[in-house]
Amino acid sequence: MKFTYLFKSLAFLLLLGVSASTQAQEISAMQAPRVVSPEVADDHSVTFRVLSEKATEVTLNGSWMGFGTTLPLTKGEQGVWSLTIDPLPSSMYHYNFFVDGVALIDPTNSQALRDGTRYASLLMVPGEESEVFQLNDTPHGDISQVWYNSPSLEVDRRMYVYTPPGYASGKDSYPVLYLLHGAGGDEDAWTSLGRANLILDNLIASGKSKPMIVVMTNGNAWQTSTLRNIPGQPVPTRETRAQYQGKFEKSLVEDVVPYIEKNYRVKADKDHRALAGLSMGGGHTITASINYPGTFGYIGVFSSGIFDANADMAEMEKKFIALKDSGVSKYWVACGKEDFVMESNKRLLAMLDKTGFEHEYFENEGGHTWANWRTYLSMFAPMLF
Amino acid sequence: MKFTYLFKSLAFLLLLGVSASTQAQEISAMQAPRVVSPEVADDHSVTFRVLSEKATEVTLNGSWMGFGTTLPLTKGEQGVWSLTIDPLPSSMYHYNFFVDGVALIDPTNSQALRDGTRYASLLMVPGEESEVFQLNDTPHGDISQVWYNSPSLEVDRRMYVYTPPGYASGKDSYPVLYLLHGAGGDEDAWTSLGRANLILDNLIASGKSKPMIVVMTNGNAWQTSTLRNIPGQPVPTRETRAQYQGKFEKSLVEDVVPYIEKNYRVKADKDHRALAGLSMGGGHTITASINYPGTFGYIGVFSSGIFDANADMAEMEKKFIALKDSGVSKYWVACGKEDFVMESNKRLLAMLDKTGFEHEYFENEGGHTWANWRTYLSMFAPMLF
Repeated sequence: MKFTYLFKSLAFLLLLGVSASTQAQEISAMQAPRVVSPEVADDHSVTFRVLSEKATEVTLNGSWMGFGTTLPLTKGEQGVWSLTIDPLPSSMYHYNFFVDGVALIDPTNSQALRDGTRYASLLMVPGEESEVFQLNDTPHGDISQVWYNSPSLEVDRRMYVYTPPGYASGKDSYPVLYLLHGAGGDEDAWTSLGRANLILDNLIASGKSKPMIVVMTNGNAWQTSTLRNIPGQPVPTRETRAQYQGKFEKSLVEDVVPYIEKNYRVKADKDHRALAGLSMGGGHTITASINYPGTFGYIGVFSSGIFDANADMAEMEKKFIALKDSGVSKYWVACGKEDFVMESNKRLLAMLDKTGFEHEYFENEGGHTWANWRTYLSMFAPMLF
Repeated sequence: MKFTYLFKSLAFLLLLGVSASTQAQEISAMQAPRVVSPEVADDHSVTFRVLSEKATEVTLNGSWMGFGTTLPLTKGEQGVWSLTIDPLPSSMYHYNFFVDGVALIDPTNSQALRDGTRYASLLMVPGEESEVFQLNDTPHGDISQVWYNSPSLEVDRRMYVYTPPGYASGKDSYPVLYLLHGAGGDEDAWTSLGRANLILDNLIASGKSKPMIVVMTNGNAWQTSTLRNIPGQPVPTRETRAQYQGKFEKSLVEDVVPYIEKNYRVKADKDHRALAGLSMGGGHTITASINYPGTFGYIGVFSSGIFDANADMAEMEKKFIALKDSGVSKYWVACGKEDFVMESNKRLLAMLDKTGFEHEYFENEGGHTWANWRTYLSMFAPMLF
């Protein structure tokens, strides 16, 4: 079938008198796109379709449905399985099909997302609420995949650096937000799933946020990067994780911050450094900020908290007080009502209350989701600098 | 099943006394990883596995098998379908499964590749031949996703820019290779499928190539970038393609080259500019080089040629002579013996012969594949500058 497609394309371009060569993708069009999926109707109901004459069961799981739940598609004419769901609120979602129990991305949807080791198909329901993370007609910042040496971890590692529109051709210095992902993620997560670059593009364009650099590291201290097949990279066993405990926070402050301040045009002081993270990255944020008071003037903790109920709270209290005394312009905490980390989140809030640490708390619907983390970033960034 | 996994992870980290929060990926582990796939044996035979009790048919297509061919997996114990293939030469491959006719990426393989609108799973067979495109323990260059204004196309567009190790912290100026993808690809193709950054890292580290900047544009002039959902971005119909004919080449020379030379530390003359492309990008290379003689001193045409047998050859001949007279240090042409573009490739070679244009030609096994394009880049880059 590949040859057919190739020659059709070729014939078609020759027909046009196009003098360039043509070539279809090397990854074959394995399934002719005889169905459209997903199809978002004007009322925001969504129809999913899968073409299979032979399947005995096709189901769907979507990020709006809750964990482990599936809905069945129904087989119709010519082997087209379909399902139409009720209108969804404007947002960005992801989903997988299961054909006879095997998980897959939608073969007719060209947009897939990677979350760590897993893939899902993207579903965008347009509307006002999703405007802040769309690619709109504004100036765009650049994203660089940057390799830096980490003396703390004794490896070269990779991070993503967002520079705001105008950085490349300008002379200005900028403040920096260090933005940390959760467990299972990597340095790619905040741009691919979190759309942090688009959120910043939009907030800067509308004047809601100051132009800033955003640094997105890899919080898995045993990895050099999301790239796999790296000789000598330890497998993250329990022992590996234990061995690396606390090392990411050290490498962030002692390796990453100096690298950024040496190689980018930045304002290199506490009042122009912010630190925020989600889930595990919120834990990293708490630890790095109390271990290095005076480094970050703005702190954001998303869907996280103090996880270890048996931690030495007296010792931690001293550290929070030292951080408070170092001068923090904003300590912002956010969590969803249904988030499974709520108890940990409450421990953080109790610690802030107990130490008289001025802070703001935002609680919304939903749980431990990228929909919430995109919202939190779009609320936090305008508070900075 | 998601909750189980979340709470297991949480309990496990609490057990370790890890004070950071934890969280599994939001994209669920839809299928427990009860099988290993792919498994490369010491003799380089490969076993593929899919878990499905209910499927009636599971097949495989791999990039080593040829277009449209599939091999059946056999159902074994506990619903595990498997297939072991004969040893493969050391290289990078990709494959898809078909479960009851539906194409999917391997759900247990964390490495997938995107080629335009399609996804496939990555298979790496290690060995000497693939060393040049592995992530080895060398210094790594950075990749930036750069937005630039294109006056020729009247939009902001995105490209990828590789800067060699040492660029960020150094002061040196570098030569530039402009590297173009084929039809169906975009600005991401040369790094994700072509591994151009890793090839350059390795060639530079071994002293085989001079350090250089590599600029990878989006050759689809009607797109601003690989990113979809862009308001106002034309759908590439026949009419669109016809309307945009020749415009990419113009924007490359008149928009991209000036942007790079303004914003990067480069040696801005013909003898430090190279242009190469594969397939459609080879066509772009031919057109841009003859339309702008004196711009590029090094030219590489991979798996391409003069596609339009009805083109005005007398006019083209004049242009090739003007290009020759402008001073080209290297004109390098490469094609696979089984490549479907061979006739077009021969027309290019005939033109070079007829105009007395000094050139080198490399012909190898295989066809229109990324395996060949990675090889061609790893041969071409050492010839430059």
